[in-house]
Amino acid sequence: MSYFDAASSAPLHPVARQALQASLDDGWADPARPYREGRRVRLLLDAAREAAAEAVGCRPDELVFTSSGTRAVHSGIAGALSGRRRVGSHLVVSSVEHSSVLHSAATHEAGGGSVTEVPVGRTGAVDPGTYAAALTEGTALACLQSANHETGTEQPVAEVAGACRAAGVPLLVDAAQSLGWGPVGGDWSLLTASAHKWGGPAGVGLLAVRKGVRFAPQGPADERESGRAAGFENVPAIVAAAASLRAVRAGAGAESVRLRGLVDRIRASVRELVPDVEVVGDPVRRLPHLVTFSCLYVDGETLLHELDMAGFSVSSGSSCTSSTLTPSHVLRAMGVLSEGNVRVSLPLGTPDAEVDRFLAVLPGVVRSARERLGAGATGAAGPVRDERRGRLPAHTAAGPGAAAGPDGGAGPDGLVVDALGKRCPIPVIELAKVIGDVPLGGVVTVLSDDEAARLDVPAWCEMRGQEYAGAHPVDGGTAFRVRRVS
Amino acid sequence: MSYFDAASSAPLHPVARQALQASLDDGWADPARPYREGRRVRLLLDAAREAAAEAVGCRPDELVFTSSGTRAVHSGIAGALSGRRRVGSHLVVSSVEHSSVLHSAATHEAGGGSVTEVPVGRTGAVDPGTYAAALTEGTALACLQSANHETGTEQPVAEVAGACRAAGVPLLVDAAQSLGWGPVGGDWSLLTASAHKWGGPAGVGLLAVRKGVRFAPQGPADERESGRAAGFENVPAIVAAAASLRAVRAGAGAESVRLRGLVDRIRASVRELVPDVEVVGDPVRRLPHLVTFSCLYVDGETLLHELDMAGFSVSSGSSCTSSTLTPSHVLRAMGVLSEGNVRVSLPLGTPDAEVDRFLAVLPGVVRSARERLGAGATGAAGPVRDERRGRLPAHTAAGPGAAAGPDGGAGPDGLVVDALGKRCPIPVIELAKVIGDVPLGGVVTVLSDDEAARLDVPAWCEMRGQEYAGAHPVDGGTAFRVRRVS
Repeated sequence: MSYFDAASSAPLHPVARQALQASLDDGWADPARPYREGRRVRLLLDAAREAAAEAVGCRPDELVFTSSGTRAVHSGIAGALSGRRRVGSHLVVSSVEHSSVLHSAATHEAGGGSVTEVPVGRTGAVDPGTYAAALTEGTALACLQSANHETGTEQPVAEVAGACRAAGVPLLVDAAQSLGWGPVGGDWSLLTASAHKWGGPAGVGLLAVRKGVRFAPQGPADERESGRAAGFENVPAIVAAAASLRAVRAGAGAESVRLRGLVDRIRASVRELVPDVEVVGDPVRRLPHLVTFSCLYVDGETLLHELDMAGFSVSSGSSCTSSTLTPSHVLRAMGVLSEGNVRVSLPLGTPDAEVDRFLAVLPGVVRSARERLGAGATGAAGPVRDERRGRLPAHTAAGPGAAAGPDGGAGPDGLVVDALGKRCPIPVIELAKVIGDVPLGGVVTVLSDDEAARLDVPAWCEMRGQEYAGAHPVDGGTAFRVRRVS
Repeated sequence: MSYFDAASSAPLHPVARQALQASLDDGWADPARPYREGRRVRLLLDAAREAAAEAVGCRPDELVFTSSGTRAVHSGIAGALSGRRRVGSHLVVSSVEHSSVLHSAATHEAGGGSVTEVPVGRTGAVDPGTYAAALTEGTALACLQSANHETGTEQPVAEVAGACRAAGVPLLVDAAQSLGWGPVGGDWSLLTASAHKWGGPAGVGLLAVRKGVRFAPQGPADERESGRAAGFENVPAIVAAAASLRAVRAGAGAESVRLRGLVDRIRASVRELVPDVEVVGDPVRRLPHLVTFSCLYVDGETLLHELDMAGFSVSSGSSCTSSTLTPSHVLRAMGVLSEGNVRVSLPLGTPDAEVDRFLAVLPGVVRSARERLGAGATGAAGPVRDERRGRLPAHTAAGPGAAAGPDGGAGPDGLVVDALGKRCPIPVIELAKVIGDVPLGGVVTVLSDDEAARLDVPAWCEMRGQEYAGAHPVDGGTAFRVRRVS
């Protein structure tokens, strides 16, 4: 078994386990009580806060422990927005933030505030100048992740923090994915993190608020954690979180070099071994242990299932693996292919041999997933169209919509592929199957009501060297126009 | 060492420890992920939910795990209020609820809602008729604890639930103190609880919302726990919470009988062994393991400190042991003495011998605390006034305020005791010292700016058989009038 989804949750670090067990005996009493059991817990809590604050790079009295990274983000954003409500109610976030940030932004907007989502480039990073331009007189808070959870791309936090400082706007950095690797540089004002991402236990988040930052905790009052994190402190877990952060940091230098090498190998090999694949995210400015790629003509759910059967646990931003039927907002914001998406994030200590085995297994898994959808072994848009057609549930051969569109086949707009009611990756497969029938310079129109098509048809065009000619709404969906140019 | 503060937090139950350790290996992955590590965690979570739901007496899909009991209360109240906002914005609570309920009520009020606090009688229970009368057309939600955390008094939940059902108002029951002893009877709509109160780990609360109850989770959206508890689930702790609840319940019948016997002994013995003591709370309808009493002429902080030195960890609702300088809102609502307050709550398995030792030690601790304040060994208001006076920092003898009040000593209003600037229990000690100087039928006035005096002067009158003749504001504080009638 190879667990390659550390970015979701890392296996419990041995030091976390040890610290947790060691503090179970002494860590159950109320740290607010003056008797000896309470004093003992208070000492544990104080020591954990000092250790965590040192790793974060802040003062102990600037740091509170929350019940999760999500809670840290919710409380941090709400408290900072309220603390600066006299300045204004404008919130700036990047378009690739974690859902806890974007959902906080949606709540803020629903409550009458305004939100600007700063776009990202094709590698997933914001441009510092674009970010700075989003800051206005009435901006109460800006948020930027240290590194992206789906692609590993690092954000230019120091530059953005500088721009925020110049504009007098506090910057909240969601450091959930990076804190185990090192402190966040730059002059940030608030920082959040989550222990189970670095191998600490679940149930512990960090919220740091620099002295001088206006902060008004929201929700019912509670005296715990300086009034910033309601509920009885989970001290054994907090102790384990702090101890494991320190342990992980001690080995981060060497391990990041080693894992970066493994990821570099995956990045290069996937391109060589798998046809029609797009490796996404910044190749250099990125987390050491994370790589994401997308495979054309593949159903992400099948891919995950087959990899799971082969002993690999990975995640995916494909729409077919989510409950919402929409692809990952990160891939969407980057404008990259979402179908057949695979995120590999290596836990600390991943042996080289597991990566070797993954690279040995992956091509066959992708091939068989493509074959199952009739998309062939070497890419649906290759030259072997006759062979493929025989194996496809192909509308062009037998489907009810067939190649005859609303205009009755090749109308004034050229060929029409009716993929309405079909989910990712079928619309793109259908497109690939007919592109050979389109004369050079001619247009094929794909009708689809699948959210992923909006992302995947243009991405396919880029990958296959065809021209994406835009989209317009039609009855029951969207018409995507593709001009054959090669 | 005897830890007698289970109502704050119970020592970790052996079954909780075992279940926690056993699930650390399998419980760290994301239960929402489809690969095998995730599926394994999902199974653990589902099983824990079924076990906890059975103990609560609800369906598994009615129960979510929160990060604490406080969070369960905050989320439960906010969600129920919002779910019924079209009905109205009136909230009913008892005056002795846990601070998490009262702080939620304060937040609701600050947001424009209205709140009715139903008073309690001298034993700390609400009257079901009075509670029912507080329900109006616009009542969105009613809250009532199953049993009080400071006095152990059980509330008439079934009767109040019936009245709420008749009025069409959902009732939220805070079962934090009682769930380990048994399910909450009656037709409640929402229920909250906290695992570390029954010996489970910190970091786990329960929120049950019956099907059919309108509920709109507040705060940023999050897909975890049916959208009702944001943040990554702490599955090992949840497993430990459910397993220990089941274990505690299995032994609850026999253990409640045994602890009830021990508490009965404390209730009776304290009255015999300690002069001027008031045992508070309902003597019969109460939690089995909890007893609270208050000792006249004693500084609660000293009492706790001395008991801690003697090896007993207890808590107190006295003002001098809190950061707010106000006595416990529970004691205040009951109108009982707050000074020298001690809460004893026995953990499961407390040996008889520890209670014996407590009863052997307590009288001496109280006596020496009284002596330290010059309040004598047998009660400040006893007959040995001359002896006492010599040892007191007595204003009547030497204090700057002395017995001369604003009217120049025994004015038209009789004797005036100026205790301004003096904290509990000094004002009552001063009162006790001079009562012998007041002629039968005469009045003594105590000037005090201590919040506790508002509670303790009337309570002293009741305990000492004198007549409390009311209070009125004066420069810098309040004048409390006491008529000597015995």
